[in-house]
Amino acid sequence: MLKKNVETFLECDKNYEEAEVILFGAPFDSTTSFRPGTRFGSSAVRHESFGLESYSPYQDCDLIDSLVMDSGDLELCFGNTRAVLGEIRQRTQEILQDQKLPFMIGGEHLVTLGAFEAVQEKYPEICIIHFDAHADLREDYLGEKLSHACVLRRCWDLIGDGRIHQFGIRSGEQEEFYWAKKHTCMHRFDFEGLEKTLDSLKGKPVYFTVDLDVMDPSVFPGTGTPEPGGVSFDELRRAATLVCEKARVVGCDVNELSPHYDASGASTAAAGKIIREMLLALTKKA
Amino acid sequence: MLKKNVETFLECDKNYEEAEVILFGAPFDSTTSFRPGTRFGSSAVRHESFGLESYSPYQDCDLIDSLVMDSGDLELCFGNTRAVLGEIRQRTQEILQDQKLPFMIGGEHLVTLGAFEAVQEKYPEICIIHFDAHADLREDYLGEKLSHACVLRRCWDLIGDGRIHQFGIRSGEQEEFYWAKKHTCMHRFDFEGLEKTLDSLKGKPVYFTVDLDVMDPSVFPGTGTPEPGGVSFDELRRAATLVCEKARVVGCDVNELSPHYDASGASTAAAGKIIREMLLALTKKA
Amino acid sequence: MLKKNVETFLECDKNYEEAEVILFGAPFDSTTSFRPGTRFGSSAVRHESFGLESYSPYQDCDLIDSLVMDSGDLELCFGNTRAVLGEIRQRTQEILQDQKLPFMIGGEHLVTLGAFEAVQEKYPEICIIHFDAHADLREDYLGEKLSHACVLRRCWDLIGDGRIHQFGIRSGEQEEFYWAKKHTCMHRFDFEGLEKTLDSLKGKPVYFTVDLDVMDPSVFPGTGTPEPGGVSFDELRRAATLVCEKARVVGCDVNELSPHYDASGASTAAAGKIIREMLLALTKKA
Amino acid sequence: MLKKNVETFLECDKNYEEAEVILFGAPFDSTTSFRPGTRFGSSAVRHESFGLESYSPYQDCDLIDSLVMDSGDLELCFGNTRAVLGEIRQRTQEILQDQKLPFMIGGEHLVTLGAFEAVQEKYPEICIIHFDAHADLREDYLGEKLSHACVLRRCWDLIGDGRIHQFGIRSGEQEEFYWAKKHTCMHRFDFEGLEKTLDSLKGKPVYFTVDLDVMDPSVFPGTGTPEPGGVSFDELRRAATLVCEKARVVGCDVNELSPHYDASGASTAAAGKIIREMLLALTKKA
Amino acid sequence: MLKKNVETFLECDKNYEEAEVILFGAPFDSTTSFRPGTRFGSSAVRHESFGLESYSPYQDCDLIDSLVMDSGDLELCFGNTRAVLGEIRQRTQEILQDQKLPFMIGGEHLVTLGAFEAVQEKYPEICIIHFDAHADLREDYLGEKLSHACVLRRCWDLIGDGRIHQFGIRSGEQEEFYWAKKHTCMHRFDFEGLEKTLDSLKGKPVYFTVDLDVMDPSVFPGTGTPEPGGVSFDELRRAATLVCEKARVVGCDVNELSPHYDASGASTAAAGKIIREMLLALTKKA
Amino acid sequence: MLKKNVETFLECDKNYEEAEVILFGAPFDSTTSFRPGTRFGSSAVRHESFGLESYSPYQDCDLIDSLVMDSGDLELCFGNTRAVLGEIRQRTQEILQDQKLPFMIGGEHLVTLGAFEAVQEKYPEICIIHFDAHADLREDYLGEKLSHACVLRRCWDLIGDGRIHQFGIRSGEQEEFYWAKKHTCMHRFDFEGLEKTLDSLKGKPVYFTVDLDVMDPSVFPGTGTPEPGGVSFDELRRAATLVCEKARVVGCDVNELSPHYDASGASTAAAGKIIREMLLALTKKA
Repeated sequence: MLKKNVETFLECDKNYEEAEVILFGAPFDSTTSFRPGTRFGSSAVRHESFGLESYSPYQDCDLIDSLVMDSGDLELCFGNTRAVLGEIRQRTQEILQDQKLPFMIGGEHLVTLGAFEAVQEKYPEICIIHFDAHADLREDYLGEKLSHACVLRRCWDLIGDGRIHQFGIRSGEQEEFYWAKKHTCMHRFDFEGLEKTLDSLKGKPVYFTVDLDVMDPSVFPGTGTPEPGGVSFDELRRAATLVCEKARVVGCDVNELSPHYDASGASTAAAGKIIREMLLALTKKA
Repeated sequence: MLKKNVETFLECDKNYEEAEVILFGAPFDSTTSFRPGTRFGSSAVRHESFGLESYSPYQDCDLIDSLVMDSGDLELCFGNTRAVLGEIRQRTQEILQDQKLPFMIGGEHLVTLGAFEAVQEKYPEICIIHFDAHADLREDYLGEKLSHACVLRRCWDLIGDGRIHQFGIRSGEQEEFYWAKKHTCMHRFDFEGLEKTLDSLKGKPVYFTVDLDVMDPSVFPGTGTPEPGGVSFDELRRAATLVCEKARVVGCDVNELSPHYDASGASTAAAGKIIREMLLALTKKA
Repeated sequence: MLKKNVETFLECDKNYEEAEVILFGAPFDSTTSFRPGTRFGSSAVRHESFGLESYSPYQDCDLIDSLVMDSGDLELCFGNTRAVLGEIRQRTQEILQDQKLPFMIGGEHLVTLGAFEAVQEKYPEICIIHFDAHADLREDYLGEKLSHACVLRRCWDLIGDGRIHQFGIRSGEQEEFYWAKKHTCMHRFDFEGLEKTLDSLKGKPVYFTVDLDVMDPSVFPGTGTPEPGGVSFDELRRAATLVCEKARVVGCDVNELSPHYDASGASTAAAGKIIREMLLALTKKA
Repeated sequence: MLKKNVETFLECDKNYEEAEVILFGAPFDSTTSFRPGTRFGSSAVRHESFGLESYSPYQDCDLIDSLVMDSGDLELCFGNTRAVLGEIRQRTQEILQDQKLPFMIGGEHLVTLGAFEAVQEKYPEICIIHFDAHADLREDYLGEKLSHACVLRRCWDLIGDGRIHQFGIRSGEQEEFYWAKKHTCMHRFDFEGLEKTLDSLKGKPVYFTVDLDVMDPSVFPGTGTPEPGGVSFDELRRAATLVCEKARVVGCDVNELSPHYDASGASTAAAGKIIREMLLALTKKA
Repeated sequence: MLKKNVETFLECDKNYEEAEVILFGAPFDSTTSFRPGTRFGSSAVRHESFGLESYSPYQDCDLIDSLVMDSGDLELCFGNTRAVLGEIRQRTQEILQDQKLPFMIGGEHLVTLGAFEAVQEKYPEICIIHFDAHADLREDYLGEKLSHACVLRRCWDLIGDGRIHQFGIRSGEQEEFYWAKKHTCMHRFDFEGLEKTLDSLKGKPVYFTVDLDVMDPSVFPGTGTPEPGGVSFDELRRAATLVCEKARVVGCDVNELSPHYDASGASTAAAGKIIREMLLALTKKA
Repeated sequence: MLKKNVETFLECDKNYEEAEVILFGAPFDSTTSFRPGTRFGSSAVRHESFGLESYSPYQDCDLIDSLVMDSGDLELCFGNTRAVLGEIRQRTQEILQDQKLPFMIGGEHLVTLGAFEAVQEKYPEICIIHFDAHADLREDYLGEKLSHACVLRRCWDLIGDGRIHQFGIRSGEQEEFYWAKKHTCMHRFDFEGLEKTLDSLKGKPVYFTVDLDVMDPSVFPGTGTPEPGGVSFDELRRAATLVCEKARVVGCDVNELSPHYDASGASTAAAGKIIREMLLALTKKA
């Protein structure tokens, strides 16, 4: 008897009950101000993972052995930001209640807010590790507070000074950089200081959010706002693995892949491999 | 002394005071549910008009001689639908107050609502002529009432039964087609009945909204939701010219060009020529 | 409790037991001699069906009400033609044994052979209705008999003269056209004679194979070997619907979509709508 | 012993001595004012002809049996228009002196001037049949007389009134259309009147120049200046075949394919099939 | 009252009178021998600058505070090289006469010659700093002396030995490299020796010309002749900033962006950021 | 008298008799499991070499002076793996018998097997130097032993343990990495250890096979299975040059360029330059 067509990221086909990590996609990009398309990110990563291996020669382990379930994409309503963040929050809460780790794939960076609200609710002492090209610290964007350009500022609204650790930042308004000096721990251009930060966060719950455009557009052109001057794939891979190994990650996301801007598929492959390495590092620990 | 860089659609470079028709772009696509990109439509039409002639051999007249001004694109906030419709409405009101004809270039089809609200305010007896592949008559889309898929339904909320004349419709939910039987005048697949409709509307104020995807994707692939089985360029050109010549058009728009889906530029050229023919037909009359 | 990610073509999500028609993909293109890529056809049709409606205004019915199940794609081994045809045959046999209608989505046209072998086994008196730009009647291609260019010839090996009815053919070697005069019923360029053919086949079991490149490249550029001069979307839609309504179709396939050659998505949409119309016509009858 | 790599259009591999028709490419586009790329036209037609058949079911004959030689592309110096036209003229003269028919593949339309100068030198009474979307009758373009937009005007400089027969014209400046009324025989939009023109030219030497953008961009998007509203592939095929059969063609060219604007390859296929049909019609006669 | 549509690069919207630096585009590529398209470079940089910030975290300053005016693109006649260089020269002269700094955006590299002629006229003792992948030192190209491949040789014709300082060169004919040993100061592959060169030029007027293809195609694929093995974005950013800070730059240009070869937009973004950093470094000094 | 159109890679136009190295293309990709397209690799390298120089500033020598002949592409039958490998073997044998060096351009990596069989026949003591992202050491792929994913394993079948030296490997199944520990000399991620390997192979015949995807997708996106984390162009250039200079190379190939996945042409240029450098290093030695 034939079965319906199930599609998952790599070997993330465990059942919900046994899974420790739950993947879900948040295909939303309504507030993207420049070039849209990240709504296609999560499904591209899933479909194109056919071209990747589940085994990592970097960590010498295989996703087949990890307890990860891919629950597919949320069905989100474009144009209604509030409702979308609510649905993301609800999905995250459900996963957290079942004592599993939520791993969201965007979508634009604003989706982080929905997941973070749920995580912060459970872990009020939460800190954030943020990899990105852009500061995302604006108070508003053309008057709108719920914008991709403001997402870390909105997270700061919830947790306040000194708990957001930013790495790789190389673009923003002058004001964002000045504001960051007082309110966040911003590391510009690369991952210098990451190990020290991880030491300082030892044992504390961490939300880890990766905007893939922290990578240089040469290796990751498939994104809405390319910012030349970023880190290499290997730099991101090592840094992301380190966070997943060393920090007590209780929620995380990877976002801003806009696959149609890179017809070669290299950006989607880069996103998929970063997610694979993160999943392996997270589940080795678990 | 050198001047700043001014860019207009074709020869639409008249001053505001003298102009009879005011072009403006509404680069918004936040509610697009399938593939975004119509935000780039208005600027593509403007920039690519360099490849077109201002003279029409169909109507034997030239845009150089028409009193049209291109006022550029509105700066709209992606992700805040209400605010966007408000800004479009305000721009339209300003043009109407100055006794000029507003001609909007989208953007997704929802932008029509903002312009139509302003037009309907001034002309409460307004009727709509609507060219489209899609019925756009849903009560809501995933719970959201302000969606591209609902835009004509929202217009109906304002003016009620029998005043929306739809042509070319070939896609929608079963419910939309059934609802249309009672509430709108829907002509499926092509422009049959257009002349009779125009006769019946003689002298009445008309808002004319053209969703370019009424054309077949063969001639207009540059759109978010291609629907094979549409009309040809010449069919649309003739029908749109007829409306602009025969009806008392007091406001109009052309929308749903998503230029990046057609790298050949043919879709943008088709949009530009339709706009040129409409402008010529509108200003010949004036 | 979250569920795994199930993806189906439109609303073809019925269970196997209740389903009357079983969709399956055959992603194979190893023998394609010019430009490969049809291996991506079936999954593109499935994923992009999100942009289509399940309701047909042409037939005024909805796929929600049809008993169709999408069983996903076969996992086929590129480079091993024999094994691939064997797996397709086996899948088709299984469906036929359960008294259901197999509906295959290619892939290159050679996949038809695997399905046809199973159908012909069950219905030895089977006839073929074949829509295509190319004759596909070569004895061999560079010495190879199992090639896309030979697929109808291989079918003829099984059933002999006068039982293959070809429509729309506009390309081939001189020899193929001469050979066809004696051995098949070839209708060149369009669908003239289709109704008469259907009358003559009344009650007889028919295998219906549609090479989508029968459409003109203007409406269907997403194929490996574009042949200008083909039929329009509406011509194919009407003809394919007619076959599904009038003939006793016991197996069918739609193939040769190569989605990457048409970044606009129009070709994939055209393929999806043809499949939708065929499914509706097949299940109305049932 | 291995041989060097020879590449020809379809089966146009006869030796120079035996050949009746000599193909050559003129890869030049320096004066193109909008979007360049026709320099790649001739080589694309050659390389992509692998996907076409040499047999025509329309005319029931095969290029294998035609005495045609493909002599490859001229090496032309971009940026030096005068020198380029001189080299084209020289190549054409050489072919004419050897009593063969020159068949040039552009390149932009200006290349016609070089070939036409040589043909007109040999046949002072020459007439022109011109298929195009654009009138190409400007006196100058931004002050430059040797521009693609002026090419038929430059030919007129050589032969004067009443000898240029234009078909399919749908774009140009107002002045060009008015000028044409006095000086050329312009048939707008389609091929109406072609048979009558051919009757009137019976026995007279004809130069036949085909700007492929006479076709609608739906079937031929691969061109620099798409002009929606053109003829279909079959209309052009029939008209071009008719000219080659009925007129005494002593030189001809096909130009303005810009292959990179149509990644599907359909435009290049359309160009190749038009050339194939023309070659077959020309050599049947010979 | 509505205004006409003004478009500028980032915040370069100062008035001509107050501006210290005048941007202008030179959209010309007629002599490009391989793949054209740089004609679209200047307008792409302008339009896509919407995705960039005007603030630089590298130099901690903002273009809002710089006195720069974008005067738009020259209207140049494709196919007439002499006339084009004349118009560029004239525009540059006008800017220089008004005691402002001309900053040209190409276009192909030959446009440098027009600007350089004007600068050398005013500053006969001028030296050149040249960043490029290609030597551009040919005496002629297919007989033509006014070619992109000869542009630095033409500059040398004006100023002679020892005043052209080339960096990053990794491609050319053997003869160019040998000729350079005697006549220019060529630094191959990277920017080694730049600081020493800048020391030696202290106080002397410098024309600074940047061919963006000095960057590796991984970070800058949007160019006509990709040459793997180039410098990174950060290497170019640092070197270009250094020149603008340390040298007495009296004229400069950035060229060879061909945006259509990089659909991701990363190349255009890289060009825009290099121009932003150069403008900031030039105006900080001023 | 005009000649037929001959096309060669750069200046590789020597006659067969005088040539020391014979280039030939093997356009085959039937077993490619993910994304096909390498069949276009060899012809793209040939056609796009027009944009490259024949002179290398790295080695200060010119291909004009090398005795290399480009014999074009084999005509291979897609879908018949056995026959294809036989034809490649035969071509290689012919070249070897004439005491020349065979240099094959793929195609997918499986083509190596055909050439290697011929080389191993002549040099039973042959060793292999293998640059690749993927281990290619599977025993079978979906049951098929003749697959691109198994090619080095098939070579090992012929020559056994310790004679395959792999560099740059960063992807594969766990089993392949474990198997390699016993049977091949695998160097992961980069070229560390290459010099030592070359020392150990001094004087021994070597087959050198380069899968271009050993490069990072940032510099080489034009390949079917992009694997972020690879080597740079300069690293590959230096390593490949070193092998050709130091080892006794008796046969070699370069494969896996899939040009259509990189519309910028940078990947094709990278492939062409690597081949140029290898040819120069091989013929300098000779």
